Amino acid sequence: MRAVVVHPPAVGVELADVPLPTRSVGEIRVRVLECGVCGTDHDIVGGKYGRAPEGASYLILGHENLGVVLEGDPAVVGFSPGDLVVATVRRGCGRCRFCFANRSDFCESGGYTERGIVGAHGFMAEQYTDVPEYLVRVDPALRDVAVLLEPLSVVEKAIFQGQRVLNRKEPTPGHPPTGSPSALVAGTGAIGMLAAFVLRVRGYEVVAIDRHDDTTPAGRLLKRIGATHVNAAAGLAVLGEQGFDLVIEATGSVSLDFGLANVLGPNGVLVLTGIPDASVPPTTVAAGALWREVVLGNRAIVGSVNANRTYFESGLRDMTVFQEKWPGALAGVISLRRPLAEVADAVLEHVGGSIKTVLEVTPPRTSAPSAG
Amino acid sequence: MRAVVVHPPAVGVELADVPLPTRSVGEIRVRVLECGVCGTDHDIVGGKYGRAPEGASYLILGHENLGVVLEGDPAVVGFSPGDLVVATVRRGCGRCRFCFANRSDFCESGGYTERGIVGAHGFMAEQYTDVPEYLVRVDPALRDVAVLLEPLSVVEKAIFQGQRVLNRKEPTPGHPPTGSPSALVAGTGAIGMLAAFVLRVRGYEVVAIDRHDDTTPAGRLLKRIGATHVNAAAGLAVLGEQGFDLVIEATGSVSLDFGLANVLGPNGVLVLTGIPDASVPPTTVAAGALWREVVLGNRAIVGSVNANRTYFESGLRDMTVFQEKWPGALAGVISLRRPLAEVADAVLEHVGGSIKTVLEVTPPRTSAPSAG
Repeated sequence: MRAVVVHPPAVGVELADVPLPTRSVGEIRVRVLECGVCGTDHDIVGGKYGRAPEGASYLILGHENLGVVLEGDPAVVGFSPGDLVVATVRRGCGRCRFCFANRSDFCESGGYTERGIVGAHGFMAEQYTDVPEYLVRVDPALRDVAVLLEPLSVVEKAIFQGQRVLNRKEPTPGHPPTGSPSALVAGTGAIGMLAAFVLRVRGYEVVAIDRHDDTTPAGRLLKRIGATHVNAAAGLAVLGEQGFDLVIEATGSVSLDFGLANVLGPNGVLVLTGIPDASVPPTTVAAGALWREVVLGNRAIVGSVNANRTYFESGLRDMTVFQEKWPGALAGVISLRRPLAEVADAVLEHVGGSIKTVLEVTPPRTSAPSAG
Repeated sequence: MRAVVVHPPAVGVELADVPLPTRSVGEIRVRVLECGVCGTDHDIVGGKYGRAPEGASYLILGHENLGVVLEGDPAVVGFSPGDLVVATVRRGCGRCRFCFANRSDFCESGGYTERGIVGAHGFMAEQYTDVPEYLVRVDPALRDVAVLLEPLSVVEKAIFQGQRVLNRKEPTPGHPPTGSPSALVAGTGAIGMLAAFVLRVRGYEVVAIDRHDDTTPAGRLLKRIGATHVNAAAGLAVLGEQGFDLVIEATGSVSLDFGLANVLGPNGVLVLTGIPDASVPPTTVAAGALWREVVLGNRAIVGSVNANRTYFESGLRDMTVFQEKWPGALAGVISLRRPLAEVADAVLEHVGGSIKTVLEVTPPRTSAPSAG
């Protein structure tokens, strides 16, 4: 079958012919329809991240996925050929208390693998197989947007974790009398945009910043969902004195992380979702003032990565809410579709500012099931 | 009456004669027995912090306190002359949702005051008055250690908040099969030592670091309560590869804060309690690696300051547990007692490495109640 192949830590990506995966007992065989391209793919292609499966000479790229069931297992109920499915990404170590409970996003041993990223083949291929425990069935009404479910799951987790930390405080009698809680989203790529969607339906007043004016697709979408877009190209001072309850960092910019800690309101929580480049040169930081404000303001900085099945499921529920509230808006997060053959360009243009590029692994209108 | 007086932001401290406070309706009059001296007092005397009450030309210093009720109010039940009491420190703004519910340690408006620190007189004086809501009654069996209740309340809050953040993760089936959770305490001043006490009774394996060998009073006390003392004068590398679930920072050292983020285990939480000096020169930080580990490890950094009445009450319960478990050990945290007249020396020697210096405001054996 055709697959997008990388050889980490070598730089580069190619379309190759690889063997069809063997289906083990209890597994489901899935034809891949679409894969989203994200910053992690870009880092893997750039040689900065990723690991091939043990014993393999290559890694099939791709973790944001949507597919259709080709073939189930007679012993497995609940999946029929033609069902739309999204696979989760992380596979647990099988020995720590989180992976034991299938909460592998909090793996304590570090022995997990991630499909398309570290130690396990991904989804930029015609087919894959997996056990039902890692497959989330998707309503056909969400066909056009379901490839966004994996990045949405990351956002669902980040916001849920952020809210848990916000709620670490003693119970209080109800919401603030002064109005809705406030959130800042830094970055208007797919993670930032999806965070704005989720925060809006959670009742937050949302400000989203990037380095562009309001005429971009992101700027228009933000307006559509009732969020405020701010061009922060000149710095965070444009945000004024307002302190935010919740800040979601979705750029991975190291210097921005420090700045965002300073726009937190009292007791505010900054959730970092962007993965900074470890090779960035050391930064000079007014650390005394930074940590002083964190302590005196009861503030928190929380890292969040990956997501388990729970968050894929809450993402599906939210997608339905998005579709009802702002029909068609969510599809606007997919700013470009490209055929599989253009994978190299798709990965490169990620840097160019498209919200989300989606690779059509199975060309549209030829996706009729055929057992592999 | 005699009182320890400062004139923030002027440097210096003096013993002065000031008017006895007037008791308003509903208030209790308290004779002060003892006050602990801490880093915040040192900063106020050094002109770095603190604010006199509105309209006042001076501030009475002191927030760690123990007193005895002199005179109640006929309308107030529950307090009788001779009762031992500790006063909480922060007084709410009266308008935000936390102060409304008397959780002023999370004040959102910033309009709070703190007795002996900002905008309200403290307890290094022969007497004070306050409403019962801010007074915590203390069992006479805790007479010798109850002056530690205020710093203990800060520790109770910090650890409770840290555990809440640790518990933000999805519920898991029980404790880790591999053993107790692990905690690192950075600093063996009073906050660090009290943190070690609390963490031990919460079931943590505790490592406490400072820059001394095991022969100090702190080193001996740590051994007594089953914690491990490590001399980290040469750096954090001495801790090896172990990652900690919970790290309590109790030094306020800016450069240390960054290092401690790196000794967190997966999903670990660093709680900052030390208040760094904002005027410390900017630090150069390998921020890419720092934030990358925070994100990829689902780690969190949480600031914690002050404490509300709840934590004073949990502190009292813990003090009783400490006394049962390690008789006499808690009193060892008080390394020096001095008469009120030696306040200047007491504040200065804080820097010298004593665990906790206590000022005897009312000399022992002359503390019989006498209405003011």
